Amino acid sequence: MRFDVLTIFPAFFEGFLAYGIVRRACQRRQVEIGIHNLRDWTYDRHQVVDDRPYGGEDGMVLKPEPIFRAVEALTHRQSNPSVVLLTPQGRRFDQSMAQHLSRQSQVVLICGRYEGVDERVAEHLATEEISIGDYVLSGGEPAAMVVMDAVIRLLPDVLGNPTSAQKESFQTGRLDYPVYTRPPVYRGHAVPAELLTGNHAEIELWRRRAALRKTLRYRPDLLTDQTRLDEIDRRLLTELLHPSPPAGQPLTCHSSS
Amino acid sequence: MRFDVLTIFPAFFEGFLAYGIVRRACQRRQVEIGIHNLRDWTYDRHQVVDDRPYGGEDGMVLKPEPIFRAVEALTHRQSNPSVVLLTPQGRRFDQSMAQHLSRQSQVVLICGRYEGVDERVAEHLATEEISIGDYVLSGGEPAAMVVMDAVIRLLPDVLGNPTSAQKESFQTGRLDYPVYTRPPVYRGHAVPAELLTGNHAEIELWRRRAALRKTLRYRPDLLTDQTRLDEIDRRLLTELLHPSPPAGQPLTCHSSS
Repeated sequence: MRFDVLTIFPAFFEGFLAYGIVRRACQRRQVEIGIHNLRDWTYDRHQVVDDRPYGGEDGMVLKPEPIFRAVEALTHRQSNPSVVLLTPQGRRFDQSMAQHLSRQSQVVLICGRYEGVDERVAEHLATEEISIGDYVLSGGEPAAMVVMDAVIRLLPDVLGNPTSAQKESFQTGRLDYPVYTRPPVYRGHAVPAELLTGNHAEIELWRRRAALRKTLRYRPDLLTDQTRLDEIDRRLLTELLHPSPPAGQPLTCHSSS
Repeated sequence: MRFDVLTIFPAFFEGFLAYGIVRRACQRRQVEIGIHNLRDWTYDRHQVVDDRPYGGEDGMVLKPEPIFRAVEALTHRQSNPSVVLLTPQGRRFDQSMAQHLSRQSQVVLICGRYEGVDERVAEHLATEEISIGDYVLSGGEPAAMVVMDAVIRLLPDVLGNPTSAQKESFQTGRLDYPVYTRPPVYRGHAVPAELLTGNHAEIELWRRRAALRKTLRYRPDLLTDQTRLDEIDRRLLTELLHPSPPAGQPLTCHSSS
């Protein structure tokens, strides 16, 4: 697939392209990324891309003409490009949207700036308006990186192990489980004993319980729709929410312990 | 305030530091940003920062020792630093969290990588685990940029106009309003007539209605808690949801139109 990014700060992306899975995926031609300077589609001497908003208010607005021209030039050979405007006033980006974009042949990312982008871009040019979260950024550039990174790692053969993208957070209806590595004890804090048993079934149960506990703590909203959990997770969640008394101990207020 | 970022790809941030409000805020000493290579806190010849997970599974886990050492070195002069682990298994970042962080004197951002970070970092070192959204990234670096950008623009005197940060999306209980700039007609698409009237009250009403329409379209979830809307927005929203018949037209099923 191909990404084309429209920005007034092309060099912003140099580090992004030079490291990690993005670099590797580009080298292996699993993805092509073009970074384009919006000012290349201005026709005035000062390469002006912004202007004052109609109706008054502080701040500047990105003008429609350079954006329309750029997107048309970048997509003219494509029959069905996704043209994404990155803006806080958009649909909220999530893992299923990342999967949707990973199946497109071309995605153009328009990075907003200043007070906003002339609304005619959203109405008549963009196919999607996407917000990466409920916060406001000074520009769409970090958002474009986030979208590209989330999508590129889902492309075929980009991640070393294809199963890892299926088992992770937001795919299973809960957060992913906690992980530990050596040393077994660090500053008095031990790795959970279950992980050292070598018993695969026990490890799996520990991981699922730990993942559900973490989800309950930080993202209980994810658990309101339990149809996304599998049968085992649903049972474990019920146990966590309604713990039964320890075996051998009678269910009474006057237990001996 | 001061940010310290812990990463295995320090050069990833060069573009981020060199443009826009971040560059300006650094130059004016409104914020200090230190980018630190996690490998500087390894003691072995190959500067290994990761290891295989206990309990089996593909992928590598960031080891606890270099992260503990780095954070302790970076915060030893601070009494109350925020130590943020960027991870999909965290609380979801939003504008109110950005405001909270903007009032801290030091924020350390730990960029996760690979399959994850040894959980003892989350349990015994980090003061907060933050996820920037419901998607999975290959590393925490873009997330660190997002958090820094969202926070830095809220610092005193960073944005030219202090009111703009108060009126925008996620502060008012709805998305921000659409903006337009010249030309008044572009490719047959005209700027809404209300914005050209010069009538401030009319412009304000148009903007609020347009903002609420956009929120209904993309983020109806924001409107479930209407206590965050002000009185005027609540009234306009009721009108949008229950439009009354045009004046002069009787409320009947057999109207003449």
